[in-house]
Amino acid sequence: MSQDQEYENASYQEKRPEAWALYQRLKREGEAAGYYLNPDVDFVLDLMDGLLTNQQRYGYGACPCRLADGIRENDLDIICPCDYRAPDLEDFGACYCALYVSEEIARGAKSEPVIPDRRWEEREAEKRAREPARSAAEAADHEHEQVGWTASGLPVWRCKVCGYLCARERPPLKCPICKADRDRFERFP
Amino acid sequence: MSQDQEYENASYQEKRPEAWALYQRLKREGEAAGYYLNPDVDFVLDLMDGLLTNQQRYGYGACPCRLADGIRENDLDIICPCDYRAPDLEDFGACYCALYVSEEIARGAKSEPVIPDRRWEEREAEKRAREPARSAAEAADHEHEQVGWTASGLPVWRCKVCGYLCARERPPLKCPICKADRDRFERFP
Amino acid sequence: MSQDQEYENASYQEKRPEAWALYQRLKREGEAAGYYLNPDVDFVLDLMDGLLTNQQRYGYGACPCRLADGIRENDLDIICPCDYRAPDLEDFGACYCALYVSEEIARGAKSEPVIPDRRWEEREAEKRAREPARSAAEAADHEHEQVGWTASGLPVWRCKVCGYLCARERPPLKCPICKADRDRFERFP
Repeated sequence: MSQDQEYENASYQEKRPEAWALYQRLKREGEAAGYYLNPDVDFVLDLMDGLLTNQQRYGYGACPCRLADGIRENDLDIICPCDYRAPDLEDFGACYCALYVSEEIARGAKSEPVIPDRRWEEREAEKRAREPARSAAEAADHEHEQVGWTASGLPVWRCKVCGYLCARERPPLKCPICKADRDRFERFP
Repeated sequence: MSQDQEYENASYQEKRPEAWALYQRLKREGEAAGYYLNPDVDFVLDLMDGLLTNQQRYGYGACPCRLADGIRENDLDIICPCDYRAPDLEDFGACYCALYVSEEIARGAKSEPVIPDRRWEEREAEKRAREPARSAAEAADHEHEQVGWTASGLPVWRCKVCGYLCARERPPLKCPICKADRDRFERFP
Repeated sequence: MSQDQEYENASYQEKRPEAWALYQRLKREGEAAGYYLNPDVDFVLDLMDGLLTNQQRYGYGACPCRLADGIRENDLDIICPCDYRAPDLEDFGACYCALYVSEEIARGAKSEPVIPDRRWEEREAEKRAREPARSAAEAADHEHEQVGWTASGLPVWRCKVCGYLCARERPPLKCPICKADRDRFERFP
């Protein structure tokens, strides 16, 4: 770390101590699991303020970029990190808030994309999937929609380096255990 | 960290260097996996002394609050962290020694409970389950006792945030990968 | 850390900054998952130089002790950490390069062994296993060879302490989540 960087960090720490502490924790926990935070520190600290406000208001850290309901049960999918972080990182290289970004964006090699909110789309698909299907064709459509959403439809992935198993639509960008890249995962069994 | 706290830590480090080093390692490893140590440092350092003594005496860190047999094979379930840490944290908010505690107790929001030792109870249940059942009713009882104890009876849980899979009686309090709370786990498949 | 050690580290950091930074990252990530680096720092920094050269040359960190093809798809199994780290650590206490070593070797309690390269052996076995078998006896042999290599033949292991699941030929030396030793794993289900 350069002296300038150290000075700047000390200044953040002094001026925005709570946001800074939360940022440090999420950064440490994220990196330990192969997730990266947005490299724009001012932007991230604003998101931390949003998370802290939601924590205070609702008792849980609902996503600062979405409208929370205020009842934990209804907001479970958008407590940060949200259920959509994984597919959004895979499809767009960033989560909806752009708090979590791909390794390329974290290193500044690429800029952030605009991310659509997949929450309502998926909830609608889930709701439709629960209704009795009217025809075989429709049933097949519903089945398609469920892939990657309901637990029963999710494939299991195995890291060929360390044997880590996880169940998700697609393998993670990095193995959270050994940091191998996603192309070293295989379907299991 | 306050100056007073830093001074106190430096003093521990000087006076009880081995216990302090083990404490630091367990704290780091625990927090990385969503486990928290008791906030009472003096109490924890006494437990570290017990662990170090057992390490020296037996060659493995048997639980400092239980009577070890001295043969690794017989003590496997009580090498720290013991097999009972997970269910005790879930049921009581602390392990039998109160070395590991829930997040609430770690932050001082709740005080430690008294924890019964579930070791013998479970071993007896396991032993009975292995004996041939005398009647169908008894067999059903044994089956009930086995839930959460034998591997074959354990459910698999999936973290909806990151896809992490684990097999335990109940989901963990925190996902060890992404730190999501237990209510974001679902049964898999 | 002793003053001498701190001085020596500062000197490495100054003279070989990139190799040192990579070493620090691999050490941190490794230890977080229960893997240990060779305690000979000069030796490890030479391996880091090799990895950095390969990263520069090929765009990925191919094993510095093997001849890379240069096409990522063909080298996937030897991107560090390679697919052979786990079985080599289990069989020999070190990976092919001796970058990763067992806990005993890391603490200096044992010296490094000479490690044969299992890569070609396993690739040949895999190739033969894919060819149609000429006889039942030969088929049985092929089946034997596949154990621990094809995903379909791998057993799932469960850590009895935390419930972690992984699919590998044998359980890991340490649970990457709770650091329990391998004898606390059981077959699942």
